[in-house]
Amino acid sequence: MNSDDAVRHGPSIGIVGAGQLARMTLPEAVPLGIDLRLLAERGDDSAALVAKHVALGAPDSITDLRRFAQTCDVLTFDHELVNAAALRDLMAEGHVVRPSADVVALVQDKRLQREAMRRLELPIPAYELVTGIESFSEFGSAHGWPVVAKATRGGYDGRGVWILDDVAAAEDLVSRTGAQTSLLVEAWIPIEREIAALIARRPSGQTALYPLVETLQVDGICRELIVPARVPDHLVQEAHQIATTVAEAIGLEGLLAVELFVSEGRLVVNELAARPHNSGHFSIEGCRTSQFAQHLRAILDWPLGDTRLTAPAVATVNVLGDVAGIDPRSRIAQALTVPDCYPHVYGKAPRPGRKLGHVTALGDDQEETLARARRSAALLIGGDV
Amino acid sequence: MNSDDAVRHGPSIGIVGAGQLARMTLPEAVPLGIDLRLLAERGDDSAALVAKHVALGAPDSITDLRRFAQTCDVLTFDHELVNAAALRDLMAEGHVVRPSADVVALVQDKRLQREAMRRLELPIPAYELVTGIESFSEFGSAHGWPVVAKATRGGYDGRGVWILDDVAAAEDLVSRTGAQTSLLVEAWIPIEREIAALIARRPSGQTALYPLVETLQVDGICRELIVPARVPDHLVQEAHQIATTVAEAIGLEGLLAVELFVSEGRLVVNELAARPHNSGHFSIEGCRTSQFAQHLRAILDWPLGDTRLTAPAVATVNVLGDVAGIDPRSRIAQALTVPDCYPHVYGKAPRPGRKLGHVTALGDDQEETLARARRSAALLIGGDV
Repeated sequence: MNSDDAVRHGPSIGIVGAGQLARMTLPEAVPLGIDLRLLAERGDDSAALVAKHVALGAPDSITDLRRFAQTCDVLTFDHELVNAAALRDLMAEGHVVRPSADVVALVQDKRLQREAMRRLELPIPAYELVTGIESFSEFGSAHGWPVVAKATRGGYDGRGVWILDDVAAAEDLVSRTGAQTSLLVEAWIPIEREIAALIARRPSGQTALYPLVETLQVDGICRELIVPARVPDHLVQEAHQIATTVAEAIGLEGLLAVELFVSEGRLVVNELAARPHNSGHFSIEGCRTSQFAQHLRAILDWPLGDTRLTAPAVATVNVLGDVAGIDPRSRIAQALTVPDCYPHVYGKAPRPGRKLGHVTALGDDQEETLARARRSAALLIGGDV
Repeated sequence: MNSDDAVRHGPSIGIVGAGQLARMTLPEAVPLGIDLRLLAERGDDSAALVAKHVALGAPDSITDLRRFAQTCDVLTFDHELVNAAALRDLMAEGHVVRPSADVVALVQDKRLQREAMRRLELPIPAYELVTGIESFSEFGSAHGWPVVAKATRGGYDGRGVWILDDVAAAEDLVSRTGAQTSLLVEAWIPIEREIAALIARRPSGQTALYPLVETLQVDGICRELIVPARVPDHLVQEAHQIATTVAEAIGLEGLLAVELFVSEGRLVVNELAARPHNSGHFSIEGCRTSQFAQHLRAILDWPLGDTRLTAPAVATVNVLGDVAGIDPRSRIAQALTVPDCYPHVYGKAPRPGRKLGHVTALGDDQEETLARARRSAALLIGGDV
């Protein structure tokens, strides 16, 4: 810790990664006097385009991580693709890494996540580690088809998850992914809704929960958020209890998103992310303290902020690139024609399927608010809606 | 206009000046994909500490202004101390300057302001231009003592305003300020409350009013904001009508703050500022669209945002440096111990009387909310409250 400097000029936080999460964190650092620094892979990464202090380097290089850590009081992350062993070394050398290397290692690995959830007796589907093709046939016989296969590492936005109808589909998957890809097999469950419980925890123990978020995915990619989630109160409480249990069990430092399914009226935990999360983007305009400000406060062990909603209904619609290749940066004025809508562009070159931005709408009625967010988001990518 | 670039990457806005207003504008530019550039006098100016694109130069140098304008689609301002004649030249050369050179010239000069208000038949005190010491004695005889003397140019935060009890005080002032200082003399009026009406207007004519703000000044410096202002509805409407009249009459492009007094139950216009204003800091957390985002939208001729409050009561307390010399950047954690308070530090070296930051509190009750903002602001500057 550069303690002299911290006292005089506020603390410095280094974010490993310079994607849109880092980009949305930058504005929150300014009022708090936090010196935010980024370790970017490329100079044109989303956040690197707008940040003052950008170092170039690889998140899996101990050399790059160490050099970067030496410029920061606290190290944190924009994504999970970091070398966890290197983080353990940095922590051993006295660097402050939040969330910790153990938490990063946990969220990187769906098998470790499932084992932790089982130990905590959280509601999860039946699952097994795949050791060969016979794992699928045995699991399918025991729990029924279809089954869900998941890569234990590296999957995101729907990548690394497959629904398999029979043994032939499992054989095809194993032959395509190869022996290097470690897989889980899980019981398929019917999904009524998907929700996310966001919680922040600071090292000294204080936690803060966000209003429960309903998420709508298409092809595994989160497309829409509706807040508050349309689920009964007892499920809100249960989801919040699950998030609190996980946060405390893993010694969370920072923000955690717990993705859950509502299946046959009950909650089932899907997976964890230990950082600001796509499901929390609504909080920038929708809550008194955004998830990005909250993450900064949490990793600095500062008092956490109020998470109340700023409007009765909040909706967020993600903007993905399509084949037309329109850059949302050229369409802000159009998106703003829809009342009470707040567009965000990430500065990324448009490519089909790529998350290029989002729009949050505030309002009094959920349906009407979501409709506005959709209209504004469509305009942001060039639609005439 | 760099139109190709604007289409691909969003517009670039240049702010002349890099004080706290520019600093608070920076975060609002990020989601909108606006490339914000600053013309700073010094590298350690408040906003220059956090901005990516900073040019050094003087706001009264046509050479510096022209070089800077060539890098921006739209030029705007952090303060009024700009060379208005140079802005006229830049506009003639095709640069987009918002607000216009005429508006900048108007707000720079209290005499021009008063003349404009008189033409618009707005409620103002009796006033005259001072041509010599006899102006004071004649004015005092006609309107009674005390009178108020004001420097027509260069005054702010209470500087350049004097209350004079008699001719002797006027003689003393004239001898101290000298012939170079052009003065107005105005009738002194009893002030019950001070309020500010904020309005944004875009070139194509749309306007957006903010909830009326009550301001509390100490020694001419704005110390506290209470929103909504505690004045009867008919005064709110009248204040909003005055702001709209001024905005339309001057062809406002951007944000305007109209400072008003409530005197004997009626409104009297004090002065104008054509930029985001200290009285609008509450809007960062307190309104759905902050004055800084609104100013950017207005000068780009983009649709203006919703200005509704995010909580029933909003209060802001400015933090001024005191003799202890404590830097608020070292006291954020303490300020955050007060619930639902949002500290902002400006990154300026602490000096007695200097505006170093502010705290906005959100709540349900005005008294309670103001009390929290005061407590948090006191902690930010080192108090033990």
